[in-house]
Amino acid sequence: MPHPSAIPKAAVFRLSLYLRELSGLHDKGTETVSSYKLGNLLGLTGAQVRKDLTYFGQFGYPGLGYDVQKLIGELKRILGTDRVWDVVLIGCGNLGRALASYKGFRKQGFRIVGAFDSDSRKVGTSIGGLTVQPMSELAETVTRTSSRIAILCVPADQAQEVATLAAAGGIRGILNFAPAPINTPAGVVENSVDLSVRLEQLTFQLRSTSSPD
Amino acid sequence: MPHPSAIPKAAVFRLSLYLRELSGLHDKGTETVSSYKLGNLLGLTGAQVRKDLTYFGQFGYPGLGYDVQKLIGELKRILGTDRVWDVVLIGCGNLGRALASYKGFRKQGFRIVGAFDSDSRKVGTSIGGLTVQPMSELAETVTRTSSRIAILCVPADQAQEVATLAAAGGIRGILNFAPAPINTPAGVVENSVDLSVRLEQLTFQLRSTSSPD
Repeated sequence: MPHPSAIPKAAVFRLSLYLRELSGLHDKGTETVSSYKLGNLLGLTGAQVRKDLTYFGQFGYPGLGYDVQKLIGELKRILGTDRVWDVVLIGCGNLGRALASYKGFRKQGFRIVGAFDSDSRKVGTSIGGLTVQPMSELAETVTRTSSRIAILCVPADQAQEVATLAAAGGIRGILNFAPAPINTPAGVVENSVDLSVRLEQLTFQLRSTSSPD
Repeated sequence: MPHPSAIPKAAVFRLSLYLRELSGLHDKGTETVSSYKLGNLLGLTGAQVRKDLTYFGQFGYPGLGYDVQKLIGELKRILGTDRVWDVVLIGCGNLGRALASYKGFRKQGFRIVGAFDSDSRKVGTSIGGLTVQPMSELAETVTRTSSRIAILCVPADQAQEVATLAAAGGIRGILNFAPAPINTPAGVVENSVDLSVRLEQLTFQLRSTSSPD
């Protein structure tokens, strides 16, 4: 497999979508699927599906398609979700609380093992079965649990400081929900989820297609 | 401006990022910015910034850069956030409750005007200042408020049914938080936010760069 940075992000993103569709097919008892059918479920061509998978190897059989269960296993291996990842949650406001009980994480192999907040009134309270810890305990917990991923749900003006602290504590991947861009040191990857950005992408399309002007 | 579908999604996504950075610069009193500096804040080249903006017009002045406040206005106009959008929220579990009080939405011009749930125990309860309504009132509320956007926070197995209902009720854009792909009728755009997909994109990078094997 080429170095991850050599593979288009959009292709990696589509792997996740293929995995979702394949899991759905597997649940329905489907054993094989063609690239055409898999693409069709997502509004993509079969050629696109084949091209995306070619980055990672040869998985299908000409004329037979893909073995659904086998391809699920391969995609999980490629995406790194063939194992459980311990994750820490930083910021225990409304959004943090929702994410702490988001069942989709556990289902895909992510386990939240620590929850942190800088607000002493939140420390000691319960969130998704965990007890909120002070930020001063972050580095120790990250080390003890070998967590590599942090989910950041802090206000925008605290995001950079908390990200720097998390990286210093041993975190290597940050899923950032704060509506603010952050800079991470070399070796630390960030994936930003600004929820209003997603809405803007919708309005961009709506503005030109459904407004009366 | 070309038709929205002719512009790469990634370029539109970067417009949102430029807008965030420009707002930050404006808050600090910065009046002009070069494409180089704006790109640099996001780890992009100046050429990328200029190329993205060229889809929409000519905004900068050679040798002077961009007028920050003016470009903010132009980007908001392009993205459709130079107005307030009324939005309905469907699904009032933990995530729905968090989103109902997510300040980032209001800040970018999104106003949640209705909250809905199919669970009669949730109907009538309060969420982010709104009273949860039954699904049977969705179409009437969408019409009365002229809402065009729905935020879906329902379980995966209800996503398709609720999306179909929302589209039939007049919704034209769906921000889908359910960890399930949905099909929308022609004329309805969907933007999916499967939070575990975002985590998978992180583990894809982490797997190859920081694991001991």
